Amino acid sequence: MPHLTLEYTGNLPLVAKDLLLAINKTLAESGHFQEADIKSRALRFDDFAVGIAPDARAFVHAKLVILTGRSTEVKRQLAEAVLATIQNAGNWPADLDVQLCVEMQELERETYAKTHFQS
Amino acid sequence: MPHLTLEYTGNLPLVAKDLLLAINKTLAESGHFQEADIKSRALRFDDFAVGIAPDARAFVHAKLVILTGRSTEVKRQLAEAVLATIQNAGNWPADLDVQLCVEMQELERETYAKTHFQS
Amino acid sequence: MPHLTLEYTGNLPLVAKDLLLAINKTLAESGHFQEADIKSRALRFDDFAVGIAPDARAFVHAKLVILTGRSTEVKRQLAEAVLATIQNAGNWPADLDVQLCVEMQELERETYAKTHFQS
Repeated sequence: MPHLTLEYTGNLPLVAKDLLLAINKTLAESGHFQEADIKSRALRFDDFAVGIAPDARAFVHAKLVILTGRSTEVKRQLAEAVLATIQNAGNWPADLDVQLCVEMQELERETYAKTHFQS
Repeated sequence: MPHLTLEYTGNLPLVAKDLLLAINKTLAESGHFQEADIKSRALRFDDFAVGIAPDARAFVHAKLVILTGRSTEVKRQLAEAVLATIQNAGNWPADLDVQLCVEMQELERETYAKTHFQS
Repeated sequence: MPHLTLEYTGNLPLVAKDLLLAINKTLAESGHFQEADIKSRALRFDDFAVGIAPDARAFVHAKLVILTGRSTEVKRQLAEAVLATIQNAGNWPADLDVQLCVEMQELERETYAKTHFQS
């Protein structure tokens, strides 16, 4: 933990790999996580729909999953730090309505199973 | 909010983009959401497995994520409306066992962060 | 139910389809599910980042979603059984740090909607 998933619509000129590294840096600097535990991935969607109007729209949606036990205040700070990192990531196209959002999700510690092979 | 993710197995002849628009229309007409807030995307899976028998099987799974605060009754109605929209979406292949399902998930309002660039 | 999603980084030599079948077998043998209800899919990520160091790292992350009502002990056993199945799946590259993890998630029975077309 944590796990981060970055979803974005295919009409955005995002360099996903660079943004993931920037987010990981933000999370590492928050002091809440071990650097090597931060696991992030990006998903680009070519099939998407925002509402039902034919407007030019796009979105970026990050989901950050952490173990239970942190306060609402800490979770809010983490969400806002990730949002700011995404916001700073690039030149958002002026001809698109772009929604950026970050959701926090918690996982039960008791049932989380993991292992590690070290090289 | 809301966020919808439509997952489907690659052996189904779905036109994902059309189905997303139909689902968005259903959600907009429910009266529970602002039209432009409905963010939907589709994921096609070419690597999948249903059970362990060699039968010809397929599935469609929609996840609808909304903010906390709606009653179980409203959530059930939304799930059933999305399910009906999927069911009406196409000619389901007669030679496949097809499972359709809709799950509802709630997000904490307190830790949801978002912003918007308008063109 | 259950739904399983297997996420893995693209630098791992996984045969996703085979691993899904092995996991489904594990889940069917647990006695907690009907065989045909086990719906699994895999997602390979080519855009990913583990931490911020330039080390060679990889991960596999499985999410198992079940209906509410099972004990923490049963959920832990299921997570560990899935983890063991992944661990046995292959020759993990000796030159990569590989993290394997399994998360359990529960869905409200009351708002889960589904239907089935049988061939």
